[in-house]
Amino acid sequence: MATDNLVRDLTAALDGVPLIDPHSHIDPHAPVSKSLDDILGYHYYTELAHSAGMPQTSLAKDVPLRERVREIVKYMSRFDNTAQYAWFVDIARTFLGFQGDRVTSADADALFDAAEKTFAQPDWEQQVFAKTKLEKIFLTNEFDDPLDGFDTAKYVPCLRTDTLVFHLDKPENRQRLVKTTGVEIGDAQTLRKAIWKLFAHFKAKGAKACAISLPPDFAPVPVSEGDLDRAVQTVCKGGLLSRGMFEAVQMAKGVLGVGGAETSAKDVLGLGVFWLLAEHCREFGLPFDLMIGVNRRVYEKGVYQGQDLFDRRTSLIQYRELFNHFPEVTFPISVLTSGQNQELVAYSWIFPNVVPNGHWWYSNIPTYIGRDLGERLQAVPKTKLVGYYSDAYKLEFVAPKYGMYRKILATTLADDFVRPGRLSEVEAVLLGTRLLRDNVREIFQV
Amino acid sequence: MATDNLVRDLTAALDGVPLIDPHSHIDPHAPVSKSLDDILGYHYYTELAHSAGMPQTSLAKDVPLRERVREIVKYMSRFDNTAQYAWFVDIARTFLGFQGDRVTSADADALFDAAEKTFAQPDWEQQVFAKTKLEKIFLTNEFDDPLDGFDTAKYVPCLRTDTLVFHLDKPENRQRLVKTTGVEIGDAQTLRKAIWKLFAHFKAKGAKACAISLPPDFAPVPVSEGDLDRAVQTVCKGGLLSRGMFEAVQMAKGVLGVGGAETSAKDVLGLGVFWLLAEHCREFGLPFDLMIGVNRRVYEKGVYQGQDLFDRRTSLIQYRELFNHFPEVTFPISVLTSGQNQELVAYSWIFPNVVPNGHWWYSNIPTYIGRDLGERLQAVPKTKLVGYYSDAYKLEFVAPKYGMYRKILATTLADDFVRPGRLSEVEAVLLGTRLLRDNVREIFQV
Amino acid sequence: MATDNLVRDLTAALDGVPLIDPHSHIDPHAPVSKSLDDILGYHYYTELAHSAGMPQTSLAKDVPLRERVREIVKYMSRFDNTAQYAWFVDIARTFLGFQGDRVTSADADALFDAAEKTFAQPDWEQQVFAKTKLEKIFLTNEFDDPLDGFDTAKYVPCLRTDTLVFHLDKPENRQRLVKTTGVEIGDAQTLRKAIWKLFAHFKAKGAKACAISLPPDFAPVPVSEGDLDRAVQTVCKGGLLSRGMFEAVQMAKGVLGVGGAETSAKDVLGLGVFWLLAEHCREFGLPFDLMIGVNRRVYEKGVYQGQDLFDRRTSLIQYRELFNHFPEVTFPISVLTSGQNQELVAYSWIFPNVVPNGHWWYSNIPTYIGRDLGERLQAVPKTKLVGYYSDAYKLEFVAPKYGMYRKILATTLADDFVRPGRLSEVEAVLLGTRLLRDNVREIFQV
Repeated sequence: MATDNLVRDLTAALDGVPLIDPHSHIDPHAPVSKSLDDILGYHYYTELAHSAGMPQTSLAKDVPLRERVREIVKYMSRFDNTAQYAWFVDIARTFLGFQGDRVTSADADALFDAAEKTFAQPDWEQQVFAKTKLEKIFLTNEFDDPLDGFDTAKYVPCLRTDTLVFHLDKPENRQRLVKTTGVEIGDAQTLRKAIWKLFAHFKAKGAKACAISLPPDFAPVPVSEGDLDRAVQTVCKGGLLSRGMFEAVQMAKGVLGVGGAETSAKDVLGLGVFWLLAEHCREFGLPFDLMIGVNRRVYEKGVYQGQDLFDRRTSLIQYRELFNHFPEVTFPISVLTSGQNQELVAYSWIFPNVVPNGHWWYSNIPTYIGRDLGERLQAVPKTKLVGYYSDAYKLEFVAPKYGMYRKILATTLADDFVRPGRLSEVEAVLLGTRLLRDNVREIFQV
Repeated sequence: MATDNLVRDLTAALDGVPLIDPHSHIDPHAPVSKSLDDILGYHYYTELAHSAGMPQTSLAKDVPLRERVREIVKYMSRFDNTAQYAWFVDIARTFLGFQGDRVTSADADALFDAAEKTFAQPDWEQQVFAKTKLEKIFLTNEFDDPLDGFDTAKYVPCLRTDTLVFHLDKPENRQRLVKTTGVEIGDAQTLRKAIWKLFAHFKAKGAKACAISLPPDFAPVPVSEGDLDRAVQTVCKGGLLSRGMFEAVQMAKGVLGVGGAETSAKDVLGLGVFWLLAEHCREFGLPFDLMIGVNRRVYEKGVYQGQDLFDRRTSLIQYRELFNHFPEVTFPISVLTSGQNQELVAYSWIFPNVVPNGHWWYSNIPTYIGRDLGERLQAVPKTKLVGYYSDAYKLEFVAPKYGMYRKILATTLADDFVRPGRLSEVEAVLLGTRLLRDNVREIFQV
Repeated sequence: MATDNLVRDLTAALDGVPLIDPHSHIDPHAPVSKSLDDILGYHYYTELAHSAGMPQTSLAKDVPLRERVREIVKYMSRFDNTAQYAWFVDIARTFLGFQGDRVTSADADALFDAAEKTFAQPDWEQQVFAKTKLEKIFLTNEFDDPLDGFDTAKYVPCLRTDTLVFHLDKPENRQRLVKTTGVEIGDAQTLRKAIWKLFAHFKAKGAKACAISLPPDFAPVPVSEGDLDRAVQTVCKGGLLSRGMFEAVQMAKGVLGVGGAETSAKDVLGLGVFWLLAEHCREFGLPFDLMIGVNRRVYEKGVYQGQDLFDRRTSLIQYRELFNHFPEVTFPISVLTSGQNQELVAYSWIFPNVVPNGHWWYSNIPTYIGRDLGERLQAVPKTKLVGYYSDAYKLEFVAPKYGMYRKILATTLADDFVRPGRLSEVEAVLLGTRLLRDNVREIFQV
């Protein structure tokens, strides 16, 4: 992937496109970093440092920030081959005045100091927006987020629903829901009412999507009102459901080839809530982002946010009924592994409401991005391709991640479209712009 | 994939090889298109147009052909990035005198008129054969096809058996079988006799293969004569079988990791018919084309032929017993996903009777073809590689599809064999010719 | 993959690195070939020749060696496209003075004679070591191997444990264990004692790893002392266990999505022994090589060692409990298919004790190596990458296999690191050396 003149020209043209980043974990009340530890505390770095031998004690809360940074930078010499390391060098060069090609232990203190000074500037947030050519960025909001005190034109709310689908068995989460909506939950009807209120609130505040991350064996099916009633009631009482009660759900799961022998009220409640969310996406005209394939806490003693892995044996066939049942809802789909990409391509080619969405997590690596992007561009209508999102926790990461993506996009456009004579350079830039920006605007209606 | 001189030279040489296309859906009584709607009505275009937003009403039967064509061409602006669009531009240029590089809405009427005039020529079929350098093309014949009224030297019959294996529970299909063979079916013995008659008929008419497409969870196992007897009898009466009866089948399926809790007589009958077909392939010396991995009607409201998808979780281990049991039968295997290609490579490397066959459907995209072809060429004996088939419904598609394949083949030969000094250009062309033509002749004995 | 100057320079530099080969099947008492039949009898060649049509009778014991060689070389004309053929040409050129670019039938006798003469030299073993720049090579030793009579500084012992985990139900294997350890096995405690003795013996002889190959559905779980007791006792009596006894094991397997309805005492014993092995790896400080994904004897009538294939539907999630339970044990992991590589990358990125190990068997093909290596280099700390092993049965194969790998490594370093400006040539050679040699030394402590 040497960059020749064509790739360089295309990259330069794409660099000029203002970004609308359709998925991040930015806290709009603290969108930028305050110290270099905010950058290096990103789980990609703590994971790799720990995986390469750094003990967890180096990250303990009482360790001074400068020490933590020194330690992670020291371990970087063991993973300076990775894409993630390249992001960090990019951040150091773009934002911290770093001149070198490689960051080593010797640079830790100077970078820490530079960061302290740079990040303290009162207009730092505006500077990052400007340098990044960032126009808007989507958030990931818990259902009880008040969505107040920030500019929703810049920071676009998005209703994250993992808690509702997977953790409503916990009394504290039900309490949060009651507190937020004012609806006392005791059966299917009250649950539906509470969810309607959440959507109305989010929609009023300018939310542009509903989103969820799902384990590899998740297989949504409709739950009857009666079953949902019983599930809500049982969960509220803290009990388990008898098996016979949910034969329909069981059979549906059996047909799809997933699910074990036991169905708990919690599972049924989760399936029921998921279906309710899809119904409300339809009613409120919101796309439903599905991020498919993560198993939580696989490495139980891993660093914070560095415990999740996956079972690659998952299939979009599990979503067959959902896609058929909700033709009016657009489902932007992220898959965790490149091995799932051909299904995503094929399902997007056939289902009007299925849309490939970016390159997620363990697939957010140049070689996977390049391969998956090339496949999508050859077989999915270009109007359906949401090219990329940053998944960032701090705004400083948007630039290096999109920078990596634009280079790969330019290379793909050059090799698959311009060089074979299918597109002119100008047309290729238009196609790239569509993936970077236009489709986000159209699909999420921003 | 810019085409340099070497790739261009190799492509030019391969362009001269007369084609024997080992799999298509050509109707020998109407092999060429009559209007541009026959081209654009191909499911690849209706699927992509619909996926990109075209309502199904645009394809209704009472819509005039010209209108249908205009509508699909209009939506092409949303999928002009795809490989399928490139086939259409190729058809327009090769057969319709189109001069441009891109077809847009503005071209629809002119192309429609050109097609009407061109396709009306009395020798159009011969012209397409000549321009395509097509020598022979395999058909996909239903079991009750009389195989009369066409030149079987050009149009090679092939017994397609999906109906026999998966739909013999329907009385109308059993009636068709009775009518075709003159055998009244009531038990295993009469079923066997009927199938023997089909094979004798097809063989006498010059059939060169038996073929079937299979769902991802299909796992062939032998069925005892007694079980088959009971299955035929039960199906003929329209009933379900008791479970205990088919424990052997169940266990076999369990061992292979597929199959649900319930086995119907229909399933047992299907397994039994499949095994009978393999036995008759052995007796009549016919290869048995297996096209593995398709789930039918996943998108229930999709366009005609645009409803099928898949579950990528399938394995050739499911065919273990079949491959072992029939060493005399050659099984040309098509897989639906590129993710299955390494299994296909490994099974072909080990089993003498397993042969990789072309690039099917959702894998018939340059990036998948290139990757899968490269893997096959590095690890499977070259005499076992059936390079490509068109899968075409109209003869005009053979040229652009093989054109795409030859470019990829030339690129792979250049990069993996000529440039590293393993083959001279002349030798590379011979290797390519083997994949394009020689192996089809040897393996299918044409 | 044309080799330009940069790739050539990097390859040349890497060619100078002395090798420590961390996995082979070398017999230290007969490490080099005695005739060309020892080379061509390698299962890769007999498999491909047989797959391409050679009858098994050509390999019968009573066929003279020269005849066997002639026959395999004759069939090579059918698989001279493969990577394996390229290894043979390399061997002929490197060790047998062959001058041509392609070996054909006409060369068989001359090569046979040259081999006879060459291999008869008294210092042939030393010559191969020198030409290969081989410093040390790991063995694969059965548990009752006395490990005497060879230089363990050159030939590094490694305890292979397939028999212990999968075949201890056979009385003859238990007898071998008793004979080797002097421990009469009758329950969990005596089994543990016997295994401890094996480890002590191997460790004393300089063993550097414990290793095992595992079927795709293997899912290790701890077995309670009571269950193990009962399993040992039952197996010793040749019986099957009742199901209720092993509910815990069953449930664990159920959670992991593998395992059928029946658990035999043999299975429980296997799980128990596997866990004991991991405990002893911890105690004795040995890495535990897991080679994941092979099904034995799939092609029942295949050539010797040419009967094994796989079910690609396997996941590292099956090892979740193992990796969590033994943080002190390093697990160098080999996967059989390229489709599993992204899991290997992700698990190595998260778990400190998971390490990618080489390119195994059906993935030991340039296109898979290149892809898998590229992925690993972009996302796994460089200190954790064991680049390659030969898996050789005779020392003459180390050179061509590592030669293939070094070219791919050089190409990847050039394209992904030097050309994009991330590393200088010198730094790239250092990174390559780390994969080829340094990491083997550090991870296996040689």
